[in-house]
Amino acid sequence: MWVQKEISLPSKPRGFHLITTEILKKMPIIKTINIGLLHVFIKHTSASLTINENADPSVRTDFESHFNHLAPENQPYYIHTLEGSDDMPAHIKSSVLGSSVSIPISNGKLNLGTWQGIYLCEHRDRGGSRRIVITINGN
Amino acid sequence: MWVQKEISLPSKPRGFHLITTEILKKMPIIKTINIGLLHVFIKHTSASLTINENADPSVRTDFESHFNHLAPENQPYYIHTLEGSDDMPAHIKSSVLGSSVSIPISNGKLNLGTWQGIYLCEHRDRGGSRRIVITINGN
Amino acid sequence: MWVQKEISLPSKPRGFHLITTEILKKMPIIKTINIGLLHVFIKHTSASLTINENADPSVRTDFESHFNHLAPENQPYYIHTLEGSDDMPAHIKSSVLGSSVSIPISNGKLNLGTWQGIYLCEHRDRGGSRRIVITINGN
Repeated sequence: MWVQKEISLPSKPRGFHLITTEILKKMPIIKTINIGLLHVFIKHTSASLTINENADPSVRTDFESHFNHLAPENQPYYIHTLEGSDDMPAHIKSSVLGSSVSIPISNGKLNLGTWQGIYLCEHRDRGGSRRIVITINGN
Repeated sequence: MWVQKEISLPSKPRGFHLITTEILKKMPIIKTINIGLLHVFIKHTSASLTINENADPSVRTDFESHFNHLAPENQPYYIHTLEGSDDMPAHIKSSVLGSSVSIPISNGKLNLGTWQGIYLCEHRDRGGSRRIVITINGN
Repeated sequence: MWVQKEISLPSKPRGFHLITTEILKKMPIIKTINIGLLHVFIKHTSASLTINENADPSVRTDFESHFNHLAPENQPYYIHTLEGSDDMPAHIKSSVLGSSVSIPISNGKLNLGTWQGIYLCEHRDRGGSRRIVITINGN
């Protein structure tokens, strides 16, 4: 069985945001799947998806702080600077974190660990709404 | 055809560990698959999975050294510090490396390159045993 | 439906290279798929795959500059040094960026965002040709 939906996530501030509940709401079909995979893909190069801690929001704050060290703005060697100082770091963070996550489905549920959630990582100051493609394959 | 197993990998020391053989032993069904994909998922946010060199163990040692530079302990800007100095770096490394790998299956074999192996990346000092979900889809 | 091809990409200089067109040319079958996933896997540990900006080549130049800062050559703590100063950084970059990308197929097309392309990331000075496995599953 294949199911696919393309959705827009409303604009979020720069930083790391839990979207597990938003994804699950769009895909009630998961309940009917015994074994399968959920694939979530973001159609942008300055925002990304990852899986990390779903409880303490301080983890998401520290992600934002640390990724700003890992890919700082205004590096003297950047030549792609016309779209703003947050643009080139956003591209780098997007590839370091990745544009998709895939998660097993088991017995009608997303088989995440207790502390895992899906993050939308917004790397631009004003990224706007973001397009996501959700694909489920299973039986 | 869909096959899925959830297993526990015994506790490993902080660092990078080859687990290709352990994964293959759990999935003898690979031999019967002509074309497909193997998906391996780790149900934790302080350990991760990646694919890298399967031969010289010095690569794994250098991974541990370098990732400790890439996401150091005790950064002054960390606010998520209650679970120990190794915790926040573990979350960051986990998202940089990723919580899953997917590998083609071709003619009854995992189609890895000659030098590729699957790494379990243990980012905590005492991470304990780790839950892994292995999913195979193919025909 | 499952389709899989293993191909060699000709040798490319160290740096980041768009390969979307090369991948699509090998997989005309995409046109016949309504819902599915494209999986691209690189069989090497010193080159990688990622998705990023497909327009301005300065983004690819800045990727090369920045990843050379993120995983520099000749770090004093590297012990895996026999294969050249570009070797250990290549392994690290390869795991940070990843050995596969997977992209939704929708209505006979690869469902990438307007600005997204597939990059082959060549991390060695003389990496030679690179083996890629392309797998499509869909209906």
